[in-house]
Amino acid sequence: MQINGSVGSQNADVNNQSIEARIRSVADDRDHGASELARLCLQIGAESALHCPASDTPSLIAVLMAQAAEMSAARPSMAPIHNLLVRWRHELEGLHGLDLATARRRAANAAAAVATASQDAVRLVGLRARALIEDGQCIITHSLSSTLLEVFSGLRDSGTRLIVSESRPLFEGRQLARQLSDWGLNTTLITDAQIGVFISESDMAMVGADSLLEDGSAVNKVGTYLLALAAHDRSVPFYVCCESFKQRQPDMPLFELEEMHSSELGVRGLPDVKVRNVYFDVTPPGLITGWVNETGVTSP
Amino acid sequence: MQINGSVGSQNADVNNQSIEARIRSVADDRDHGASELARLCLQIGAESALHCPASDTPSLIAVLMAQAAEMSAARPSMAPIHNLLVRWRHELEGLHGLDLATARRRAANAAAAVATASQDAVRLVGLRARALIEDGQCIITHSLSSTLLEVFSGLRDSGTRLIVSESRPLFEGRQLARQLSDWGLNTTLITDAQIGVFISESDMAMVGADSLLEDGSAVNKVGTYLLALAAHDRSVPFYVCCESFKQRQPDMPLFELEEMHSSELGVRGLPDVKVRNVYFDVTPPGLITGWVNETGVTSP
Repeated sequence: MQINGSVGSQNADVNNQSIEARIRSVADDRDHGASELARLCLQIGAESALHCPASDTPSLIAVLMAQAAEMSAARPSMAPIHNLLVRWRHELEGLHGLDLATARRRAANAAAAVATASQDAVRLVGLRARALIEDGQCIITHSLSSTLLEVFSGLRDSGTRLIVSESRPLFEGRQLARQLSDWGLNTTLITDAQIGVFISESDMAMVGADSLLEDGSAVNKVGTYLLALAAHDRSVPFYVCCESFKQRQPDMPLFELEEMHSSELGVRGLPDVKVRNVYFDVTPPGLITGWVNETGVTSP
Repeated sequence: MQINGSVGSQNADVNNQSIEARIRSVADDRDHGASELARLCLQIGAESALHCPASDTPSLIAVLMAQAAEMSAARPSMAPIHNLLVRWRHELEGLHGLDLATARRRAANAAAAVATASQDAVRLVGLRARALIEDGQCIITHSLSSTLLEVFSGLRDSGTRLIVSESRPLFEGRQLARQLSDWGLNTTLITDAQIGVFISESDMAMVGADSLLEDGSAVNKVGTYLLALAAHDRSVPFYVCCESFKQRQPDMPLFELEEMHSSELGVRGLPDVKVRNVYFDVTPPGLITGWVNETGVTSP
């Protein structure tokens, strides 16, 4: 999901009810990583700016502010949603005093501009991360990250080999393997449990992140911490690639690891057995060789 | 699968062809852990002793020796198969000079006796391991082990809580959870990737092993090494429970990690993507708090 510089007349029939439904769907979204979902939130915001019921500019701003706050609170593990929406809300505050039609247009354009800045940052991270990889190396990764897709898309014809863990329960790793296959990249697909075996074939581990905590810990799809432990144990460099929009700010709500419905594991209920489905884990900074963002690579 | 003290007249219609087929099926067996499979090999040996075509005692011994060697070589990651069959082959060498009928009976009884010794050792390991667990503690484990079933079967009414990882690709962890549910034990079932999250709720990690290497490394279902890394990182004690039959001997064939068919992962073929299904990993002794065998607990 990308939104470009202009968010305009398409979907002109979007009504407020469907905007509300889309806002609610952010909480359950499993199809997008944190950056993509943040940009999707901005797209929803832009469409709401153009079409939501509002009799004057102050009420438009109030509605958009409330919707942005709702989307922000829906995914507490994903800092970029909060960060990009905070930037947009800051722009919304500057619309007081404009007539309603102008305010609507400016609010939508501001959302698109923030999304573009996010997309540009992802592209830059891709460039910085690719500079770490030498031709013919073997990279191990976990889960699916739009930032890493940006990295890997530039590896065609480099002789790079990718090792991808399947990422239970919903197998985002298979999705990544399909994309790498389309790009003709030499790929090995493994179960998550095999990470400890295949780390020894890898020159480097590289992951995205949903958020970076203030101490440099990376919040990412569950299993990332195990990959980091194995990499550390075998002296394989472990890089976290994410744009600076993913840094948690001190004003963000209390951090929690999101849990999704246990039915995703596909296990029937059993007496005395509780099925758990925590989606994220935290990789501490001591296991991270470097953080790659749009400005460069930072090492501890 | 257990065989008891006497292996006798049941399956008297077993012919040599079905014995050969059963020997070949040892290579692909996914239903039994190393100890159970070793005892199943002894059961096959006992039935072959009673029924295989042989015109005299030397040719009986030669057939049984060759079958034992074939089963031993079929599962190089599983030391107990080798160790129990070596013990049985030693007994077979003592049969020279006996008449054929007596040799058949003695060979079958010797196989049953070795299997009983193995079963007794597993029971003792269960007692030793249970002595490490205090009422109300939380134990995290990975995969399914007949030795750990022996441990856990004695935990009813102790208030113990079990955390079980599902163990892809064939989900032996679900099988364990069903058994624990039948016993009324408070159980949490997680994906393998969540091991790093749930280690922090655990007082102790406890696993079985398919083999112990000479340096004390434990060969067990893939994912065990990741559990050990997480336990070490969070200072959670990590115990390996297995009878001394699982110790690899210097005369055993070169160690290799077995790989099973990639179709078990349930992924369709993709160009340039190789699906791997390595079944075991190696946990080094530095990550192991203690080895529990039938004689007690050894710490580094």
